[in-house]
Amino acid sequence: MREVAIIGVGIHPWGELWGDSLRTIWTRAALAALDDAGVDRVDAITVGCMSGGMFVGQEHLGALLADELGMAGTAAMRVESACASGGMALRAGFAEVAAGLADIVLVTGVEKMTDVSGDEATAALATAADAETEVFYGATFPGLYAMMARSHMAKYGTTAEQLAAVAVKNHTHGMLNPNAQYRRRVTVDEVLGSTMVAAPLHILDCSPITDGAAAVVIAEISVARRLAKGRPLVKISGVGSATDRMALHSRADMAALPSTTLAAERAYAMAQRKPADVHLAEVHDCFTIAEIMVLEALGFCRPGEGAAQAPSGRTALGGERPVNTSGGLKSKGHPVGATGVAQVIEIVTQLRGEAGERQVKGARVGLTQNMGGTGASSVVHILEVAS
Amino acid sequence: MREVAIIGVGIHPWGELWGDSLRTIWTRAALAALDDAGVDRVDAITVGCMSGGMFVGQEHLGALLADELGMAGTAAMRVESACASGGMALRAGFAEVAAGLADIVLVTGVEKMTDVSGDEATAALATAADAETEVFYGATFPGLYAMMARSHMAKYGTTAEQLAAVAVKNHTHGMLNPNAQYRRRVTVDEVLGSTMVAAPLHILDCSPITDGAAAVVIAEISVARRLAKGRPLVKISGVGSATDRMALHSRADMAALPSTTLAAERAYAMAQRKPADVHLAEVHDCFTIAEIMVLEALGFCRPGEGAAQAPSGRTALGGERPVNTSGGLKSKGHPVGATGVAQVIEIVTQLRGEAGERQVKGARVGLTQNMGGTGASSVVHILEVAS
Repeated sequence: MREVAIIGVGIHPWGELWGDSLRTIWTRAALAALDDAGVDRVDAITVGCMSGGMFVGQEHLGALLADELGMAGTAAMRVESACASGGMALRAGFAEVAAGLADIVLVTGVEKMTDVSGDEATAALATAADAETEVFYGATFPGLYAMMARSHMAKYGTTAEQLAAVAVKNHTHGMLNPNAQYRRRVTVDEVLGSTMVAAPLHILDCSPITDGAAAVVIAEISVARRLAKGRPLVKISGVGSATDRMALHSRADMAALPSTTLAAERAYAMAQRKPADVHLAEVHDCFTIAEIMVLEALGFCRPGEGAAQAPSGRTALGGERPVNTSGGLKSKGHPVGATGVAQVIEIVTQLRGEAGERQVKGARVGLTQNMGGTGASSVVHILEVAS
Repeated sequence: MREVAIIGVGIHPWGELWGDSLRTIWTRAALAALDDAGVDRVDAITVGCMSGGMFVGQEHLGALLADELGMAGTAAMRVESACASGGMALRAGFAEVAAGLADIVLVTGVEKMTDVSGDEATAALATAADAETEVFYGATFPGLYAMMARSHMAKYGTTAEQLAAVAVKNHTHGMLNPNAQYRRRVTVDEVLGSTMVAAPLHILDCSPITDGAAAVVIAEISVARRLAKGRPLVKISGVGSATDRMALHSRADMAALPSTTLAAERAYAMAQRKPADVHLAEVHDCFTIAEIMVLEALGFCRPGEGAAQAPSGRTALGGERPVNTSGGLKSKGHPVGATGVAQVIEIVTQLRGEAGERQVKGARVGLTQNMGGTGASSVVHILEVAS
């Protein structure tokens, strides 16, 4: 298998971008990544997007966006795995380069979520759950994750304060990220005092609705070395993807995320790494409970110990293994198709030593974990400074 | 690059399947393909689908369908390039096997189009065009392809009778295909006398709205050889994909399909083949004019000569290079996400010598061409009997 490295990253400030269209924000990120990589052509483009159809009435984003970028002709496709679409777009791009179908691929993610009403956005997001056995009966994602939280509380004694500590940590990190949607501190009391969405999840336990895009340029490693211009080169050493039963009620244990465990095992095996080798991670904190369960699934701690991580400071900047230094989905925002790509951008920025105030010192191995639905899809990447 | 072969195919009778859901028809095709391949596990699944969101209110089809098949855990993703989604799903699966991320991949396509009204289906399909500069002004695909037909007529003298001859040929072929939606003969007079949809395209110049799924199992070639059990093995020798300007009005020539030309050049180069080497082809006849323009773009004839192919008999069964022996989109039906995979099934069936009444004698090299929108995306595969 050919080795693959990341040679450029591009993002822009996320938020409620009512003045910009999907194609505008995507092009902004794509141009930034191409500029960072120092290339003006690529062999292929992948676009992670959950629902161009339901959010903006536009499918066929591969061709549309290649054209928008002035690159009509270039092979392009969209990849969708609900909120894991961005991570899967990287996996698809990786496969093209690793196989030799392409030397350089522009991997992107985008979602424009605020052009529809909140109700319409909730309905669009709900299509990531099982339409026949979950959505039909009224389930939405806050409700489903609330059941996962209740289950974790019942099984392990997890508390609302521990959930809130995840939000506090990620907002503290997000204040240092100029591209984050909500750059403001929150306290445990503010989280616990905020509107209850689906008990035990308050609104400050939930990631927001966001417009945003993200892009990275990947290349076969010898091509990447030629283009690195002295900067540290970040290679993709592990790729793992897995699914789980679609409906939450079909699973044996609502307090676990086996698709993330399986995806991580596959990525660790490919990279010949173990959890202890990972210096920092970006994980899918769509709700505070998700970060807790993901830390357990990745093997960063034992089952039941995830809730203690944020309160102890171990996952904060300056802690033993910082998690979501970008602010995570919680503070940075969660344009669903873009999230998985933005996670990779944060790790690359850290491994290059270019993260400024939020730099994790000595970081050489990072991990991203992106998931769809209530964990029916997971994708994990391991990134390392290439020697 | 690792070599990749097709070891199983599965399809079912297409049509207006009001009693079956998307997941039911997909599973029927997937199980048939796994049975044909003689395997009960795969390393990954790809699902080509244009708009699960707009047609059936269900995104996240990778995880949903892996679970439906009893294969939760398996890596799975959806691929979308409008009506080229099926072909792109094969390209994505090919990349995974060629790279070594997977040894065996289940490549599928599906669309359930009749659960919504005709107006809703037209609106969903229109999202394959440019929402801002085409759809907003009222353009739909029959109208856009009508402009392409008018342009071809003006430039090359193509006639309505020549368009009709494509429909006549493909319906004649489709009568021999037990899985085709419209297994009935039509005559030139019937086509010309049928309802005008968008001049010069009559309703019998248009492919129908269809529910259907299709699946193939691909494998690394040494794995494939072990599983072949004496049957001829079909390898994927060429893969090519390309885009074009999204909006029809942005293109220099509305009577040409440069994305198909470019995709074909890439596939021919990879396979070290030329048009003359191809014994039969399945091409994207979403409208009769499309088949004519595709034959020119693939290099099967010169620009302007496409319209003479069907009337001369050259593209009919028994002709020098049969095209759309399955009945094509026109007779077999066009469940948009499934079409590209079904094309591959027809070629594999022919190359194995298992096509019965519609067998092309001595066929050893076949080609599939699948496209999205008015040709903003094209994907071409070259398939050959492995020696």
